[in-house]
Amino acid sequence: MDQRLKRIQVKALHDRIVSATQAAGWIDTGMAVGLSGFTRAGDAKAVPLALAHRGAEEGFQIDVYTGASLGSGNDGYLAQAGVVRKRVPYQSDRLMRSAINSGAVLFVDHHLSQTAEWIRSGVAGSIDFAIIEALGITKEGLLIPTTSVGNSAVFAHHAKELIIEINTSQPLELQGLHDCYEPEPIGRRRPIPLVSPSDRIGMAGIPIDMSKVKGIVWTDQPDSPSPIEPPGAETDVMAGHLLEFLRGEVRAGRLTETLAPIQSGIGSVANAVLQGLLDSEFHDLELYSEVLQDTVFDLLDSGKAIFASGSAITLSAPYMDRIYNDLGRYSDRLVLRPQEISNHPEIIRRLGLISINTALEFDLYGNVNSTHVAGTNMMNGIGGSGDFGRNAQIAIFVTKSTAKDGRISSVVPFVSHVDHTEHDVDVVVTEYGYADIRNLAPRERAQRIVANCVHPDYRAQLEEYLLRAEALGGHTPHVLDEALSWHAHYKAQGTMLKKSP
Amino acid sequence: MDQRLKRIQVKALHDRIVSATQAAGWIDTGMAVGLSGFTRAGDAKAVPLALAHRGAEEGFQIDVYTGASLGSGNDGYLAQAGVVRKRVPYQSDRLMRSAINSGAVLFVDHHLSQTAEWIRSGVAGSIDFAIIEALGITKEGLLIPTTSVGNSAVFAHHAKELIIEINTSQPLELQGLHDCYEPEPIGRRRPIPLVSPSDRIGMAGIPIDMSKVKGIVWTDQPDSPSPIEPPGAETDVMAGHLLEFLRGEVRAGRLTETLAPIQSGIGSVANAVLQGLLDSEFHDLELYSEVLQDTVFDLLDSGKAIFASGSAITLSAPYMDRIYNDLGRYSDRLVLRPQEISNHPEIIRRLGLISINTALEFDLYGNVNSTHVAGTNMMNGIGGSGDFGRNAQIAIFVTKSTAKDGRISSVVPFVSHVDHTEHDVDVVVTEYGYADIRNLAPRERAQRIVANCVHPDYRAQLEEYLLRAEALGGHTPHVLDEALSWHAHYKAQGTMLKKSP
Repeated sequence: MDQRLKRIQVKALHDRIVSATQAAGWIDTGMAVGLSGFTRAGDAKAVPLALAHRGAEEGFQIDVYTGASLGSGNDGYLAQAGVVRKRVPYQSDRLMRSAINSGAVLFVDHHLSQTAEWIRSGVAGSIDFAIIEALGITKEGLLIPTTSVGNSAVFAHHAKELIIEINTSQPLELQGLHDCYEPEPIGRRRPIPLVSPSDRIGMAGIPIDMSKVKGIVWTDQPDSPSPIEPPGAETDVMAGHLLEFLRGEVRAGRLTETLAPIQSGIGSVANAVLQGLLDSEFHDLELYSEVLQDTVFDLLDSGKAIFASGSAITLSAPYMDRIYNDLGRYSDRLVLRPQEISNHPEIIRRLGLISINTALEFDLYGNVNSTHVAGTNMMNGIGGSGDFGRNAQIAIFVTKSTAKDGRISSVVPFVSHVDHTEHDVDVVVTEYGYADIRNLAPRERAQRIVANCVHPDYRAQLEEYLLRAEALGGHTPHVLDEALSWHAHYKAQGTMLKKSP
Repeated sequence: MDQRLKRIQVKALHDRIVSATQAAGWIDTGMAVGLSGFTRAGDAKAVPLALAHRGAEEGFQIDVYTGASLGSGNDGYLAQAGVVRKRVPYQSDRLMRSAINSGAVLFVDHHLSQTAEWIRSGVAGSIDFAIIEALGITKEGLLIPTTSVGNSAVFAHHAKELIIEINTSQPLELQGLHDCYEPEPIGRRRPIPLVSPSDRIGMAGIPIDMSKVKGIVWTDQPDSPSPIEPPGAETDVMAGHLLEFLRGEVRAGRLTETLAPIQSGIGSVANAVLQGLLDSEFHDLELYSEVLQDTVFDLLDSGKAIFASGSAITLSAPYMDRIYNDLGRYSDRLVLRPQEISNHPEIIRRLGLISINTALEFDLYGNVNSTHVAGTNMMNGIGGSGDFGRNAQIAIFVTKSTAKDGRISSVVPFVSHVDHTEHDVDVVVTEYGYADIRNLAPRERAQRIVANCVHPDYRAQLEEYLLRAEALGGHTPHVLDEALSWHAHYKAQGTMLKKSP
């Protein structure tokens, strides 16, 4: 007997095993598919690739819903094959990005906690196929996810048919880490009974309707490693500023040394900031985040952190080797939840999170752009930063003060796209310092941001704008026809610097 | 015996009765005060006025926190007297607005659900005095609010000292309408146990620490009537479009004829939209809103609505006469809650609200400006529109397609200030139609908004911008150096129309 069949404890499903190519053949043009996968973790791998191959030959188009970004190059393959009409709610692939920015792919950039509501209510139309990576299926009919939960539960419950990819390369110790809870439909929904990051409120897997399982596909392809860079001098400095801010909160009596549950966004800067906690005086930390990156495991290993809750585990290659060979030792300190729960406003507000996310740029008044280069070109998407930023106890946004070797200032008069409004941003941080802009009027915020965060090369230019704006008056002073001129200047001259520093 | 003393059932407080002038004399320069009051309802009246008088003579400055806007001209008197250093979180007074826009008053424009968190945690510093209007004080030591609850509970609990204004002109039938619930401190907070708009989860008043009551002041000044205009032809048309949208949701099976609990913002347009429900097929409606305006009572009277939950009752003069003379008959269909609960993300998301708020302008991609005229001058503030818009099942923003006799288009290439991002806006409505922009990519949204919402005089100009922007490419196409040019053109030429229509 094929040893792999032990993974499928519902015997009636054994005759539904098919190849990825066969499964991909069921998907017709015009369909909507829901793929498992959240920031390269636990994504369906074989069938999407087969779909891209088929699409390149046959030419057909589908709508693709996921948890968040896919790994395995699949977003790129699908985009390159021209298979994707609409893409929801997040991506981070070079080729997909380029198809989105050319207008070839319609991208809906959606708060990660909210897509499940659209699937449930039907606002997103109907999902024809859910294609979900699993460790296996228990005899009780629970699909056990792998390294992410993402939107898999809502896809499985609301899709017309299911294709399951059983991935034999994923560590079996993942079983038991998942906590699958789905809110009741609107109209009879109860409070989500989670009051601490370590609470378990759901099931160990996703209950599925066996009659909807159309096919099961084997795969042994590992998750794509995260391209995260190790912390460097600059990110260390930013982490230092952030720690300084947190120490101030402790001195003011608003936090203790165990802080509050921490959310940290995806990427190198956020990862480095967590690294800063390793050697700090803070202790018994808890994480309530969406993606658990490398440093989370360092925090757990060192005993600095006592628990981590997320929707996905996304590691760099060296950490994959280290963590997945000994995952069992984290089993009582780790939980993976649907992204609707990891990112739920109800829970984020209740737990009083400290939320740390990366900005592309922010402006004098604290508006943050997380998504659009020069206001027009999509980078990745808002992801969970809005879910967390809006509802956190403290919403922190971090960015290097400049980009493109200093030719772009990340602190501008007026952001070219707003993802987080002035009402939602508490603290901004660059390598020059932090500005705590809570309970400040716009004019006060501008003073503090100019003084603490802007790169010295741009300080005079920003001060000069602010002075002229203030002379015109208004609650939020602007020279409106110059507000976006830094971006236009960059486009025309290749730098935002209006004269040499 | 002074009959009014029956209102104060804790006898030990009888010797703390003082005049408004005496109470105002306790407040020193540099102090922060928390005033009751939410959209002209239940505001402290006598002491703030006395403070303004004193301020005009002595010259001192305080920080003023409220629920939302004040009535009785008090925001204006305080601004005119130069008494206010900082004003949080909302106002709607002509003189206060002008002081804010000149930079004389520092205004912090804050989500109405969030200010209580700042008071509780100390981010807003300490509140020296809470000045709260009440119907009276029960023998159990409960302060009974009047026509609003707002932030009164959190002010009373966290202020160092209390001044209570007992208003004998407020109808005694208000007692029993209040439901005062305060979330636990972060770290040991439980779910808010409200699962239906009619649920009562708290106390009939605000429990107060008698030792903090420094003075009690009598007043008999009624609330200021709301200046709301009765629905007209144009608002009727908008209401019609909104009903058409809702009917589509029913046909699609996403709503039933009882809809979902409705939130409706302050102002004439939102009021008119509710009016539209009166003659519709929808029935057994529930409201879960912040301000209960005139039409809510028409809906209750007609039986169209079965329950209304809010934080304040704000009525026009004719409705005040009608409703307050017979308030008792609403006692089992009405509840007033702290604004932290009426506007809480946890509840709004759980109940799946339909949220209807007014925009100043929106843009091609669905970003909404609710607060700033020409990006710089504050109108009133974001109020609860962000609390509701972000977390509602359906977030609807309504505005007339033009302002200033057609010289301003409310649909622009790029809003001059963002209060609600493209990620948060589901439906926009003008008198020309509605655009349902859910699950649409930016380019799709732009097509629909141009086709359905823009005034015909501006359609060609907007289409022309969009075409040139699309030619430049990008996920969210813009001609960045022209994006704010409509506003600049209005400032220079007195119209946004670039040539005669």
